[in-house]
Amino acid sequence: MSATYPEAVRWSEDGVAVDLLDQRVLPERESRVRLVTAVEVSEAIRTMAVRGAPAIGVAAALGLAADAGHAATRGAQGSDLLRNVRESAELLRGARPTAVNLGWAMDRMLAVLERGVSDGSLPDRLRAEATAILEEDRSMCRRIGEHGQEILPDGDPVTVLTHCNAGALATSGMGTALAPVYVAAERGRSIRVFADETRPVLQGGRITAWELARAGIDVTLVVDSVAGVLLRDGRIDAVITGADRIAANGDVANKIGTYALAVLAREHQVPFYVAAPSSTLDPATPTGAQIPIEERDADEVRRGFGRLTAPADVKVYSPAFDVTPAELVSAFITDRGIIRPPYGPALARISGARG
Amino acid sequence: MSATYPEAVRWSEDGVAVDLLDQRVLPERESRVRLVTAVEVSEAIRTMAVRGAPAIGVAAALGLAADAGHAATRGAQGSDLLRNVRESAELLRGARPTAVNLGWAMDRMLAVLERGVSDGSLPDRLRAEATAILEEDRSMCRRIGEHGQEILPDGDPVTVLTHCNAGALATSGMGTALAPVYVAAERGRSIRVFADETRPVLQGGRITAWELARAGIDVTLVVDSVAGVLLRDGRIDAVITGADRIAANGDVANKIGTYALAVLAREHQVPFYVAAPSSTLDPATPTGAQIPIEERDADEVRRGFGRLTAPADVKVYSPAFDVTPAELVSAFITDRGIIRPPYGPALARISGARG
Repeated sequence: MSATYPEAVRWSEDGVAVDLLDQRVLPERESRVRLVTAVEVSEAIRTMAVRGAPAIGVAAALGLAADAGHAATRGAQGSDLLRNVRESAELLRGARPTAVNLGWAMDRMLAVLERGVSDGSLPDRLRAEATAILEEDRSMCRRIGEHGQEILPDGDPVTVLTHCNAGALATSGMGTALAPVYVAAERGRSIRVFADETRPVLQGGRITAWELARAGIDVTLVVDSVAGVLLRDGRIDAVITGADRIAANGDVANKIGTYALAVLAREHQVPFYVAAPSSTLDPATPTGAQIPIEERDADEVRRGFGRLTAPADVKVYSPAFDVTPAELVSAFITDRGIIRPPYGPALARISGARG
Repeated sequence: MSATYPEAVRWSEDGVAVDLLDQRVLPERESRVRLVTAVEVSEAIRTMAVRGAPAIGVAAALGLAADAGHAATRGAQGSDLLRNVRESAELLRGARPTAVNLGWAMDRMLAVLERGVSDGSLPDRLRAEATAILEEDRSMCRRIGEHGQEILPDGDPVTVLTHCNAGALATSGMGTALAPVYVAAERGRSIRVFADETRPVLQGGRITAWELARAGIDVTLVVDSVAGVLLRDGRIDAVITGADRIAANGDVANKIGTYALAVLAREHQVPFYVAAPSSTLDPATPTGAQIPIEERDADEVRRGFGRLTAPADVKVYSPAFDVTPAELVSAFITDRGIIRPPYGPALARISGARG
């Protein structure tokens, strides 16, 4: 079996536009959109046509380059073009204020301005930088997938449980938590995935199940509270999730429900792996206790399926993330290799290597 | 605070009809239906206007008595009336074939036929038997609630986490798992509930949150995967769930997700209580391993609430129940008192006392 993951973000075939898989209409239909201006791309980010921190960063980089190319073909040049690029970068940066990769990608693109403006090659240089960001993201995903093979348990099939979506549709490549699954399938291993639907936003059902099924991977969807019996019944060989942030000591902030999954995995001696790029490591955050946990909109719980499913004004507690303590993580699968406990020194080494 | 729980099943004020709270339209509106014939009541059971094993049994008993009264006022008597009652009982029995209480209630009502047919008092005798079944159910709930006070932890407020709905709307009284909550509130204790929404059917959001809020109990709704962090963060004093069946050794079959909750409660040293009438104990089932677990319809997960939330044909694994091993249960709260480990002998005693 050769798995082909769907591409969330790429250049259009003619190379002048951003080509996005429109995640707003999943799983009902597969539809791609072609975007040329920063206004269009910023709207796509804001309305979550593209989501997932790495994918958002890549989309914004490509969008800024496409926007500059578009402006240049309409005659903008010199300081006009420069101003145009700066304004577009600020527009894109503001589309999802909490997405760290977005600011990072815009900073990196703007650094090109220092070098490229004088000789009229600015659009080409922006395009080259955006392409570099895209390719680095894809390469990061593939390295996570390849390192994952070192640690994926035996089994025919081997069965992985995952939570939320840290797949191809969150990156421009094959994802993070799902990258080991795609690489295993490429290499002809028999691999199977159970996907938690992941309330309240149902990324597991709407996105993970969709992308795996489309790639021809054997996937079974479960409601979140089924995970416990799957683990108890010996039906899972490994749990793999992504991470929103990894503290210096190895504590992991990730989608709500990850903590319970990690406790249940340990209870049943099933390895619990966190797959993430080394850039997710935050050396400035000593432990998980310092990671702020935002709360989500109560109506996602009360009327999340298009219908009222609870009293309209009932109190809701809906934390977006939880923190899994490092001691519940069997290993980290990163683009720089497998990190095993004790995490502090190993994570510091990776983090140091990054700069 | 004096809590007034909603009544799922009762006699109409004129005493000739079944008065049901229509659970099909919750939580959007509170609406009661008046039913006089077995055809109407059987349809209400089939379409889940009334749900929960005890409430279904009571509704069917009241329905059979109302139906006989209705037939008698239209002139049926003697062997005609007798045949009418037998046919109506079979219709009601078939409305939810898996509901044990339904068959039990019909058997008990039909036993009246042996005594009552000759003297023309059949409708009155059926009504008296149905009323006895109703009042026994209410009394059972209240006793569970009162025994629950012996074991409810201190706390101001004391905070209980529950799963699914084992409340007033599953019985004709104040429920099972929620009975200790209602009694505590009646007695002026400050009590607060976190309710798991309970995918896939969302009984926690649609029913538990609704009935508690209506009764003036402080209730907060959470998606199922939040329970782990509530327990970890010390925000829960006790977990209380109902039970669908209790094996002779104390293993408990209950709504999917109960097992994970029990593991997480033990992980954080929070007591995990199961509240159930002694009739839920099944001495013929030695352990949980012998309890069959049915699977639910995949479309409840893929498109449960009017919208496609996963690929339309993705595989789904959706067990309706799970089994929590006896060693994770801190105690049983029953109508015959608190049962503590070791469970085998204590449960056998209760079960023996039942006949």
